[in-house]
Amino acid sequence: MRVDGRDTRPIWLDKETKTVKVIDQRDLPHQFVVMDLNTVADTIYAIREMVVRGAPLIGITGAWGVYLAVVHTQVNGTDNNALAAECRRLKAARPTAVNLAWAVDRVLAVVMTKDRAPDRIHAAETEAAAIAEEEADNCRRIGEHGFSIVREISEKKQGKTVNILTHCNAGWLATIEYGTATAPMYVAYDRGLDIHIWVDETRPLNQGARLTAWELGKHGIRHTVITDNAGGHLMQHGLVDMVIVGTDRTTYTGDVANKIGTYLKALAAMDNGVPFYVALPSSTFDWILKDGVRQIPIEERDPDEIRYVQGRKGNALQSVLVPPADSPAGNYAFDVTPARLVTGFITERGVCQATEADIKRLFPEK
Amino acid sequence: MRVDGRDTRPIWLDKETKTVKVIDQRDLPHQFVVMDLNTVADTIYAIREMVVRGAPLIGITGAWGVYLAVVHTQVNGTDNNALAAECRRLKAARPTAVNLAWAVDRVLAVVMTKDRAPDRIHAAETEAAAIAEEEADNCRRIGEHGFSIVREISEKKQGKTVNILTHCNAGWLATIEYGTATAPMYVAYDRGLDIHIWVDETRPLNQGARLTAWELGKHGIRHTVITDNAGGHLMQHGLVDMVIVGTDRTTYTGDVANKIGTYLKALAAMDNGVPFYVALPSSTFDWILKDGVRQIPIEERDPDEIRYVQGRKGNALQSVLVPPADSPAGNYAFDVTPARLVTGFITERGVCQATEADIKRLFPEK
Repeated sequence: MRVDGRDTRPIWLDKETKTVKVIDQRDLPHQFVVMDLNTVADTIYAIREMVVRGAPLIGITGAWGVYLAVVHTQVNGTDNNALAAECRRLKAARPTAVNLAWAVDRVLAVVMTKDRAPDRIHAAETEAAAIAEEEADNCRRIGEHGFSIVREISEKKQGKTVNILTHCNAGWLATIEYGTATAPMYVAYDRGLDIHIWVDETRPLNQGARLTAWELGKHGIRHTVITDNAGGHLMQHGLVDMVIVGTDRTTYTGDVANKIGTYLKALAAMDNGVPFYVALPSSTFDWILKDGVRQIPIEERDPDEIRYVQGRKGNALQSVLVPPADSPAGNYAFDVTPARLVTGFITERGVCQATEADIKRLFPEK
Repeated sequence: MRVDGRDTRPIWLDKETKTVKVIDQRDLPHQFVVMDLNTVADTIYAIREMVVRGAPLIGITGAWGVYLAVVHTQVNGTDNNALAAECRRLKAARPTAVNLAWAVDRVLAVVMTKDRAPDRIHAAETEAAAIAEEEADNCRRIGEHGFSIVREISEKKQGKTVNILTHCNAGWLATIEYGTATAPMYVAYDRGLDIHIWVDETRPLNQGARLTAWELGKHGIRHTVITDNAGGHLMQHGLVDMVIVGTDRTTYTGDVANKIGTYLKALAAMDNGVPFYVALPSSTFDWILKDGVRQIPIEERDPDEIRYVQGRKGNALQSVLVPPADSPAGNYAFDVTPARLVTGFITERGVCQATEADIKRLFPEK
């Protein structure tokens, strides 16, 4: 999407130097820093340290990591053992990221069909680029399908501002273009609909305040940062027309795991008759788990993510300690919104209800 | 309550120096600073700049402000005009604080029944102290009545830990002793019940992380700081036995205005069958407004309270900017929880349901 007038993606290849470039998302929104990934070790660092984040982007980064592995392990011919070892290291950078293993294995499989080193490098580049384009295309389609819903609300309101609330960052920074939850917003904005986004700051890591607000602002979309506490009040007073969030994992029965706090917004939406949509590529559906609340494991992360808040002080980034130094904190990273609270799913194939039957209507092959 | 082994209140009189002492709550939890109030101007500053906060404590501070006004305006006899002017200034420090005007007028009325300056000073001191003791006694009674509920849960759980979730700070720092929402916790802990408190950090001003966690920790009560997003997840998994919050204003029909985000916790409590209690002195009931969601005005505060987060860096307090410098923020300070989501009110007279009939059963004179 647009950043200061230029089309920008969170990851791209510099063909001349064979360097993979990524936006260092740890410094956003206060500094726009591009990091060079030259090796598998660089790639692992970028994934582990959250230089890049978001399931689709982690997958794409892994794909480009295989490209870097091929470039370096094939210098003196084809060394399959070394290459396989590098790919195992890549996949271990974030063992729970399904997209990462999937993308690494996909590029590796194509590479292994070639014998000569130059062919392998070319194949890796082509396949990694293809994965990125497929993700971009999925997001664009999600945007198209979501746009129809936004347009319908806009028409009902006779063109008055459509207020959309979102939680966390399911934007292009987490994918490659458009994002998932943000895709309908970008498409609606680009086609001239009057929209305004309520951006939940999304504690503890403030991905909403830091990343979603930055994305939307850079593209020119009107938005307001609010605390995670505010959504219920806004909905009570008719100030939210719809909610769109992303998801990390959604059961085939329609239960949605997403950033902690999503469930509270879904409850408020239900209580106030506000449509609550989840935007996702179909790769995010879990076709095995049936009961999201009971079966999806919820990661507990470092309590210091709650205790320390990072922001800008002067020209530097600093972290400050908020609670008493000796007070424990509990950092539950995700929650599960039961299907009964979800109005619908916006996927690359279209929109469906949050029921097993309607999900399978859209994905009959599953 | 206890701070480092000593009984402590947020405000007290140093009789020798005729100085009113307050804990500067802006520096908590990282620094324990006592500020001297020697004049009405000092008192106004303390109220305006949130050195002291919380409706009951603002009232008590106003009462001591009248004492300081009397000390200074009566030096050369009884100057009623000067005294009345000082009291008007005091009440204007926070025009929406009902307790402030009430306490100032009450002390002033008693002072005006005396003719000699020394009698006036003595009367002001006695009346301000009486207001403080009445508030302390109300909170102690709230603690007693709330304790019965906690004990019942403890017995049902056969003595296993009772997990209580609270939002914001309705603690002794906001009143004078015990607090309101925290009063049942202090009584339960002091009587040996096994309790653990989930403390919502309470964005944007983090009164939970900064003040409630500090209070509970200093008194020795086991607690965990969580993001405001986490409560729903905890309730889904049986990790919350009850919720207790305070309130800034509650209609006689049972609608509860409290810190923004309270409504979301009430929704989650209802969805998971967790009892949701509101602790309040009866002075917080509004006997005129009927429909809380429609009629209670919600203050919008400075967006910079969201954009900047204060905490400790090294030995100093610092503020850091979190969202993009050019992203607007919206700071809605309170929300209203409809009566249908409230299990009961814990008042100084006992516990009642959130219905007009049951509230009036407890307060038949209204």
